Amino acid sequence: MPRSHAQLPRLFVEPDLGSGTRLTLGKDQSLYLAAVLRKAVGDAVVLFNGRDGAWLCRLTSDSKKSVDLEVVEQIAAQTPASDLWYGFAPLKSERLDYVVQKAVEMGAGVIQPVMTQFTQVHRLKTERLAANAMEAAEQCEVLSVPEIAPEITLDRLLSDWDAAHGDRKLILADEGEASSSPISALEPLRGARIGLLVGPEGGFSDTEREKLRALPFVVPISLGPRILRADTAAVAALAVIQSIIGDWR
Amino acid sequence: MPRSHAQLPRLFVEPDLGSGTRLTLGKDQSLYLAAVLRKAVGDAVVLFNGRDGAWLCRLTSDSKKSVDLEVVEQIAAQTPASDLWYGFAPLKSERLDYVVQKAVEMGAGVIQPVMTQFTQVHRLKTERLAANAMEAAEQCEVLSVPEIAPEITLDRLLSDWDAAHGDRKLILADEGEASSSPISALEPLRGARIGLLVGPEGGFSDTEREKLRALPFVVPISLGPRILRADTAAVAALAVIQSIIGDWR
Repeated sequence: MPRSHAQLPRLFVEPDLGSGTRLTLGKDQSLYLAAVLRKAVGDAVVLFNGRDGAWLCRLTSDSKKSVDLEVVEQIAAQTPASDLWYGFAPLKSERLDYVVQKAVEMGAGVIQPVMTQFTQVHRLKTERLAANAMEAAEQCEVLSVPEIAPEITLDRLLSDWDAAHGDRKLILADEGEASSSPISALEPLRGARIGLLVGPEGGFSDTEREKLRALPFVVPISLGPRILRADTAAVAALAVIQSIIGDWR
Repeated sequence: MPRSHAQLPRLFVEPDLGSGTRLTLGKDQSLYLAAVLRKAVGDAVVLFNGRDGAWLCRLTSDSKKSVDLEVVEQIAAQTPASDLWYGFAPLKSERLDYVVQKAVEMGAGVIQPVMTQFTQVHRLKTERLAANAMEAAEQCEVLSVPEIAPEITLDRLLSDWDAAHGDRKLILADEGEASSSPISALEPLRGARIGLLVGPEGGFSDTEREKLRALPFVVPISLGPRILRADTAAVAALAVIQSIIGDWR
């Protein structure tokens, strides 16, 4: 995408987008464009809806309560939503917003919190995580907003895996795994449907680890010899997967 | 390292470490152990100095102004400091502390700010970045503290490269590079001395890009089809390098 478009504000909207379409933004987005960014009539913004690609649009009114836009021209065709499932095990003190943001930047399609023995969070606010995902999608210019799936226990995730995910393989980033290059573990998965589960800081319990490794759909990989924070582990694991067998080609 | 050791505070110190050695911590570290962490006589901490590995130590006094320690036993042998040079181009609003922290977590040995056409920071506080590096090393349990080299312009970095770095190859993570798998670009570098330069958000200028790609020691790689924040790009690039040709084996 040309750099000029990269300077424009980018918002996710629900309505269909096509040349000549006119739409009115809701309260929050209108306030953001008109008051925070001080956009005025004639200024350009980019809209996307996860179905029609990205469109250059111009303001036709700049009221802080209600911005009107005219859709001008498409600047990016719609790309398919990512099929990559990403599960993470949150700790109480974890920067959940960062983990979601990083997962979106790295191309996850579905993001799901997984409760393990060493996770200590109570009920997560899915709406907040969804807002983080939308904002991250707007900022890193992905054309679909990844879905935040409701939290699930590790036990339920694994017992329901076949029914919920079919032939999807589950790559397991476990700090208990001996350090090795992930290329040989990942190459056989090229073209397959995949998911990634990143364990909590402190790792899985021995029982959990044994259970995971006994499953035929689980593929363990190492994330190297150092201890990684949760958001670092998210990016490292996704980078390795995306670069070797994912959408970096 | 057994999980029990992972719960212990870990500090970088200057003096030699060996069984039976006694040492006294400075003001800041004493306050941290005795007042913040409330460690008392007999409690264990881990010390490292970049030369002698990691050592289990016990407090023999717990004064907030001056903690004394006895060095008990080695828990990790010294590993060589990383030879991986990591250069990043900071923007004014960038989370410099995060970039340094992530680079340490991902195994960089030398970290250097590089001023490019699109970077806008004034003189960086190297001491602050060095403090970030030390804290990150303590927390992710690396056994040497990576060096923060003084900021340098891109022009100077490139003109001095042969003299300063010899046969080191420079991997270039450039958002202008067409998306492709980095395996074929990186495999030939296996066993070579390497550096990584991550461009600023917004990328290099056209002039800078042409200059970089004309150099025989430069190896460009893509970081995928999405826009990455600076700290995400740091982790993604280092993860790809470390997993394919670095210390993940």
